Amino acid sequence: MADRKPVFLVIGAGAGIGGHVAKRFAEGGYHAVLARRSDEAGLQKLVDQIGDAGGEASGRLLDAAEDGSIEDLVEQVEGEIGPIHCAMYNLGAQIGNRTLPNTPHKTFELGWRLGTFGLFRLAHVLTPRMVERGTGSLLVTSATAAVRGNSGQHSHAAAMGGRRMLCQTLNAEFAPQGVHVAHVVVDGSVDAPDTLGKLLGDQFEAYKASKGDDGVIDPAALAETYWHLAHQPRNCWTHEVDVRPWTDVPWWNDNPIVAIDRD
Amino acid sequence: MADRKPVFLVIGAGAGIGGHVAKRFAEGGYHAVLARRSDEAGLQKLVDQIGDAGGEASGRLLDAAEDGSIEDLVEQVEGEIGPIHCAMYNLGAQIGNRTLPNTPHKTFELGWRLGTFGLFRLAHVLTPRMVERGTGSLLVTSATAAVRGNSGQHSHAAAMGGRRMLCQTLNAEFAPQGVHVAHVVVDGSVDAPDTLGKLLGDQFEAYKASKGDDGVIDPAALAETYWHLAHQPRNCWTHEVDVRPWTDVPWWNDNPIVAIDRD
Amino acid sequence: MADRKPVFLVIGAGAGIGGHVAKRFAEGGYHAVLARRSDEAGLQKLVDQIGDAGGEASGRLLDAAEDGSIEDLVEQVEGEIGPIHCAMYNLGAQIGNRTLPNTPHKTFELGWRLGTFGLFRLAHVLTPRMVERGTGSLLVTSATAAVRGNSGQHSHAAAMGGRRMLCQTLNAEFAPQGVHVAHVVVDGSVDAPDTLGKLLGDQFEAYKASKGDDGVIDPAALAETYWHLAHQPRNCWTHEVDVRPWTDVPWWNDNPIVAIDRD
Amino acid sequence: MADRKPVFLVIGAGAGIGGHVAKRFAEGGYHAVLARRSDEAGLQKLVDQIGDAGGEASGRLLDAAEDGSIEDLVEQVEGEIGPIHCAMYNLGAQIGNRTLPNTPHKTFELGWRLGTFGLFRLAHVLTPRMVERGTGSLLVTSATAAVRGNSGQHSHAAAMGGRRMLCQTLNAEFAPQGVHVAHVVVDGSVDAPDTLGKLLGDQFEAYKASKGDDGVIDPAALAETYWHLAHQPRNCWTHEVDVRPWTDVPWWNDNPIVAIDRD
Repeated sequence: MADRKPVFLVIGAGAGIGGHVAKRFAEGGYHAVLARRSDEAGLQKLVDQIGDAGGEASGRLLDAAEDGSIEDLVEQVEGEIGPIHCAMYNLGAQIGNRTLPNTPHKTFELGWRLGTFGLFRLAHVLTPRMVERGTGSLLVTSATAAVRGNSGQHSHAAAMGGRRMLCQTLNAEFAPQGVHVAHVVVDGSVDAPDTLGKLLGDQFEAYKASKGDDGVIDPAALAETYWHLAHQPRNCWTHEVDVRPWTDVPWWNDNPIVAIDRD
Repeated sequence: MADRKPVFLVIGAGAGIGGHVAKRFAEGGYHAVLARRSDEAGLQKLVDQIGDAGGEASGRLLDAAEDGSIEDLVEQVEGEIGPIHCAMYNLGAQIGNRTLPNTPHKTFELGWRLGTFGLFRLAHVLTPRMVERGTGSLLVTSATAAVRGNSGQHSHAAAMGGRRMLCQTLNAEFAPQGVHVAHVVVDGSVDAPDTLGKLLGDQFEAYKASKGDDGVIDPAALAETYWHLAHQPRNCWTHEVDVRPWTDVPWWNDNPIVAIDRD
Repeated sequence: MADRKPVFLVIGAGAGIGGHVAKRFAEGGYHAVLARRSDEAGLQKLVDQIGDAGGEASGRLLDAAEDGSIEDLVEQVEGEIGPIHCAMYNLGAQIGNRTLPNTPHKTFELGWRLGTFGLFRLAHVLTPRMVERGTGSLLVTSATAAVRGNSGQHSHAAAMGGRRMLCQTLNAEFAPQGVHVAHVVVDGSVDAPDTLGKLLGDQFEAYKASKGDDGVIDPAALAETYWHLAHQPRNCWTHEVDVRPWTDVPWWNDNPIVAIDRD
Repeated sequence: MADRKPVFLVIGAGAGIGGHVAKRFAEGGYHAVLARRSDEAGLQKLVDQIGDAGGEASGRLLDAAEDGSIEDLVEQVEGEIGPIHCAMYNLGAQIGNRTLPNTPHKTFELGWRLGTFGLFRLAHVLTPRMVERGTGSLLVTSATAAVRGNSGQHSHAAAMGGRRMLCQTLNAEFAPQGVHVAHVVVDGSVDAPDTLGKLLGDQFEAYKASKGDDGVIDPAALAETYWHLAHQPRNCWTHEVDVRPWTDVPWWNDNPIVAIDRD
């Protein structure tokens, strides 16, 4: 099977970042495997779009919070489709702003299971295969909450903070073995109907309009950055990168209106 | 009960940082409640030392990983001893360097339960009481792994990274309500027989000797910094502080021998 | 001269942080040397206040931007008063928000001369003496602009960013030689009539009132943190600490009103 | 002149990063203007290589530390060649490890003039033109010393720390006006004969060999990352990115040999 395509696997393949990065890799000659928890119709639609564009793709439904689910997925994909050259962990755990009293123990634990533990499990089952092949890349979508903890973000920030440190420990162990781990800090809102769209509901369109021209990240544009990261030669690897729309204030800045009473 | 002492509670009260901070608060006029998982004799010894020095202290055994344990402890202490003015979360999850293949799922989960979830549970049960009183402080012992993920530190760094972001979200929600949250980055080895001592075993004394004069953090000295943080007036609160011995290279620096090929 | 007091030198001794830290060190048994650029009457008033309180103090006028000024000051103080045990660099370079077109080259250069170069010059002349004595401490007041660059802060942020990195290089070289370097990130407004007061002019009182109870840093309270840092034993040194009022949003957080569209 | 090419200007165009990024932009359809301080022959060689490859390029000699030099360069290029669509500031100030006593005032000041002030001057003269055109990008090569200050790096780290904060203030002011500012943290050694090569002298080849396969950054590979950054659509801009070879330990990590005594 000399003509077998390299495999790209994304866990968390909605109509936003995950789906668009899958399309980009399919365009680039990969067989894209899209995995998501629910909405089989939506998943099939993404797979068909890739096929209609002349690419190769497969879809899988999985509950990443369930024991063995990620492990089985990787084993099946490697056995039935081929070696995973690039994996992308794109599951979020954003639940909106909740005060601590309104953040139940179970909610906090689920945030960790999807935000941190799932990535650990993916790396646990996949890295030995990549190390044996001496090559591979693991792209991790992350959020502002990985670098600062805002009010109401107890579950999300704890999960993303753990994710970021895990990406560093994975990079420290596996980079010298040929596996590229990259942590993408998405520091702006994304035109993602399945996540931010559901969070904002019928205010989503009005929200996007309020951000002005190019005021929201186009996941197709962001996909180019994932593609670039995955194809940097090993003498020049990036571990962390941030992205946001031109009109967004970066997380480290105050809004311009803020006085200089402390800077 | 005008003469009732304010209460200081430490979860993770060994012979190192936890025990010494308890002694410092007892000297300063608090009733110190020391909680730890095991070694009732060691715990009683710490309580007796405080009593012999003229201070007030109580001891409790608890398994912080067990559901309800921290919640029951806080309820008992507040009911039987008095309002907790200052709580200290001092549980670590350091298991030494383990490659990813040698880090089982259960190990990673336990790291999170002790390193991140336990602090969330303590804050969940305690902050409503402090908010109602309009005052209180939460001191969190943390580690270098909270700010960078080293090779072999998958479990510890993910847990501490989550802990650090959680401290920021807790501070963001509760500081304006009068509760001071402080995150102490202990960036050096501590003369702590119950943790580093057990980790290094019979090499502990040789290790300390190899560090030279004042080459290891004296937990009694570090206790003064915890005391200072807990007593800063609310117009001047510190959220994060780092500490290390004078001879240790801070986590962000290379060892002096390293070439300047990239700086 | 067994009864000679240790010397504390502060460069940038106004009625805010500098003056109050000088008072704290004088109370603690140091001879405080206060240096500032202008307002000899204001300087003498601070010196007299310390004397009236039973402390020892001297005043010096100097233009820190002038070649040789800091060097001469250190030589005179060491020769006429005694060895400087603790020096504090408290000069700011905040000029308010200026767009780049409104930030002349000379303004940017002056920001560097006061914000970065002056500290380098102080360390250059003083550290050899401290190294020879095997002890000493250098406390550096810094600002939010040292860790993030806000709009309009070109001069100030570049100067403070340089200051922060310089504090790290100084610490890396001199900590192992017994000299403690501490960088204090003042991340909130200070009740400092000579700096913020002049910046806000007749709006200063209204501004402070708008911040509510304890809504502005009391420099006398902050002075306790400087005192604590300067007296940590060398086995447990802090390099960086942040401070702000309880009601201020830390620099890394958005204001609570901000949506969670990116966290 | 509908067929006039967009202009790319690089200040600091040696045979390493600067020269290779210029080649990449010339390949991509830009007229590349290469500016450097000396070695007219070396400069002409780079210009000829681009021409031989079918690209357009010009060379300029300038002393960036000299008043007016950068300002004149920008005016000449815009007047004689065309609007600068992308500018790259690639001047370093690395002088190797020097203790503080071995770092003269003049050396520290020169580090600032090249490392921080030159970028300020370039932005000062160029951004008004880019703002008027509503588009443009400014790519800034930076170093590990911008994020942490190592022993012996007083001049370089202070200059790079100022550079990094300046990049943030420039981004905060100009991103909303259509100008993309990107800060590239080069956290590994580069195969750059004109900088690291001169620093290491005849040990350069042995040094590179000691780093193993792909153990040193290939500036041609890094050039792809600069190209990617300069062409991100404005809805998805990166401000900061890090790069290093797969075998290098990232700046935030200890070498694997280091014990876990503090993590």
